[in-house]
Amino acid sequence: MKIGVIGGGQLGRMLSLAGTPLGMDFAFLDPAPDACAQALGEHIRADYSDQDHLRQLADEVDLVTFEFESVPAETVAFLSQFVPVYPSASALRIARDRWFEKSMFKELGIPTPAFADIQSQADLDAAAASIGLPAVLKTRTLGYDGKGQKVLRKAEDVAGAFAELGSVPCILEGFVPFTGEVSLVAVRARDGETRFYPLVHNTHENGILRLSVASSAHPLQALAEDYVGRVLDKLDYVGVLAFEFFEVDGGLKANEIAPRVHNSGHWTIEGSECSQFENHLRAVAGLPLGSTAKVGESAMLNFIGEVPPVDQVLAIADCHLHHYGKAFKAGRKVGHATLRSKDLATLKARIGEVEALIGKG
Amino acid sequence: MKIGVIGGGQLGRMLSLAGTPLGMDFAFLDPAPDACAQALGEHIRADYSDQDHLRQLADEVDLVTFEFESVPAETVAFLSQFVPVYPSASALRIARDRWFEKSMFKELGIPTPAFADIQSQADLDAAAASIGLPAVLKTRTLGYDGKGQKVLRKAEDVAGAFAELGSVPCILEGFVPFTGEVSLVAVRARDGETRFYPLVHNTHENGILRLSVASSAHPLQALAEDYVGRVLDKLDYVGVLAFEFFEVDGGLKANEIAPRVHNSGHWTIEGSECSQFENHLRAVAGLPLGSTAKVGESAMLNFIGEVPPVDQVLAIADCHLHHYGKAFKAGRKVGHATLRSKDLATLKARIGEVEALIGKG
Repeated sequence: MKIGVIGGGQLGRMLSLAGTPLGMDFAFLDPAPDACAQALGEHIRADYSDQDHLRQLADEVDLVTFEFESVPAETVAFLSQFVPVYPSASALRIARDRWFEKSMFKELGIPTPAFADIQSQADLDAAAASIGLPAVLKTRTLGYDGKGQKVLRKAEDVAGAFAELGSVPCILEGFVPFTGEVSLVAVRARDGETRFYPLVHNTHENGILRLSVASSAHPLQALAEDYVGRVLDKLDYVGVLAFEFFEVDGGLKANEIAPRVHNSGHWTIEGSECSQFENHLRAVAGLPLGSTAKVGESAMLNFIGEVPPVDQVLAIADCHLHHYGKAFKAGRKVGHATLRSKDLATLKARIGEVEALIGKG
Repeated sequence: MKIGVIGGGQLGRMLSLAGTPLGMDFAFLDPAPDACAQALGEHIRADYSDQDHLRQLADEVDLVTFEFESVPAETVAFLSQFVPVYPSASALRIARDRWFEKSMFKELGIPTPAFADIQSQADLDAAAASIGLPAVLKTRTLGYDGKGQKVLRKAEDVAGAFAELGSVPCILEGFVPFTGEVSLVAVRARDGETRFYPLVHNTHENGILRLSVASSAHPLQALAEDYVGRVLDKLDYVGVLAFEFFEVDGGLKANEIAPRVHNSGHWTIEGSECSQFENHLRAVAGLPLGSTAKVGESAMLNFIGEVPPVDQVLAIADCHLHHYGKAFKAGRKVGHATLRSKDLATLKARIGEVEALIGKG
């Protein structure tokens, strides 16, 4: 079976590492000449709207999936004429647009911060008044890793903010005084069977994920599964989806979903029976899902900008390196480490060792 | 770091799957147009004695290692002029020749079946008389998976046997009434640090490995480590080496060594903290070795001739599929499954499930 992937970055790379042992081949469509997945599959170097190359991809592969959600809707629609596409165009349409996404949460009874559609500065002025400050203005589409958003704390921040984000459709979200950020990675098969990984506690810095720690028997696991299950069924979703929540007052408020394998699920490569990457491929290929049970106690730390010296990373016990083979650049995710330890105390010590290496010790 | 591998079969494929996350790139030199590792690295399609292409490989990579031991000595010597080669030419020279290998065992005080060098039918007649029957005649080089050998049970089997194996240098080995076959996979770093995986119990059929079960606290572990350690130090070995033993009268008799990652170590991908593939690469690249500790209870079953339907393999709990992407052909190793279970009773049940799929149930 040959899998087409839109995007050829580290997520594509890890999909291929998981799928090759299942007998799958891969083709990645990505305009970047140095797309790091190309070491592990065919690289179709083309723009996402290049119909000739999209057609070539569709002709070569058995199905198409995505590495990121900001794929033009036309790309998905075009591909869908020729080849099965998972997740579906309709699921992507909602997941890639914060307004559609939040509206769906509301419709499904999933708590989410107050939000308003912003098409102009006048919309923003009105919404800032009704929702109150602080609040966060976010572009409806194309935001990631803290990009395409601005925190509005005072009235001065509101003035001109719509233009500052490019005068594109936005939403304003009420600021949530959360006590923690957690995410749930789930997988849904073609036949609707759904499995959930354990809730993960995430720590961000400057909008970029730094640390994920997998939990055991988290008191909010069942609630999170309930919420995520509603979304998966609503979207008739196929594949892996990640759902980010704020922990607020002992409950959960929905932040956003990502219709793909997710950074907060990277720990599953070593830390669970079947990784998010393998489970995504099993789901889209119509194969039985794998177990999402934990193996040991795990955490994931991102390497941002550079990977520390490999010999030093590998000298840390319980540490598994994932180097993405990308050029180092400030603010860029270029690798991660998974720690899988026998108990939480050991895990905590190991996290300290990796943090010391990346200058956080 | 770019690694050159002589050979591009499933061992090369699994080396790349283990090394890519360490930031390594791979080039495989293999004459086969369909070498299955080519999905995961550059394929230099050339004969092992093609000096132009060997030179190209040497120029492209930081070091060279091997997927199999039957590489012409001239190939290794040629490469060694231009690039570091691990394991060394001298280690390969001994490991690829059963006479040198057994002589080394004897020199190091490692028990091994009685053996004799056979250069002619007259040598064979004399050795069969002194060693006694049954005995096994094996070519000194190029044997694998039961190929290049003949069991001699009666006097009639001896007559003409030398010609039958091609009138090439052979050894005759006394038949050992073993109660089991075990192997120890070990890794030795450039600085001499050595680590051992747990002893594995192996079951062969028609000379081909079918089932490996990793042991816990095997009573012969320390003895095996002692023997293997002697060989590693003698050869000043760098990388992974597998040592196969017969269990005889509660002790061990050396069968043979393989100077490479080995089929009986495939279970380590899921079943140990750091797989034999990653540890081989860590060793040859001069990186710190990884832990050889077990994770759960593991077994490996080979898929010979064909891989059972993927959906049926993946439906088995605790089962991890490794499809080599090779054309199916009778007698060919085309994949394997690792089972990693929480206890031995569960593992035994799972082995039965996989065996049922491959028609052994």
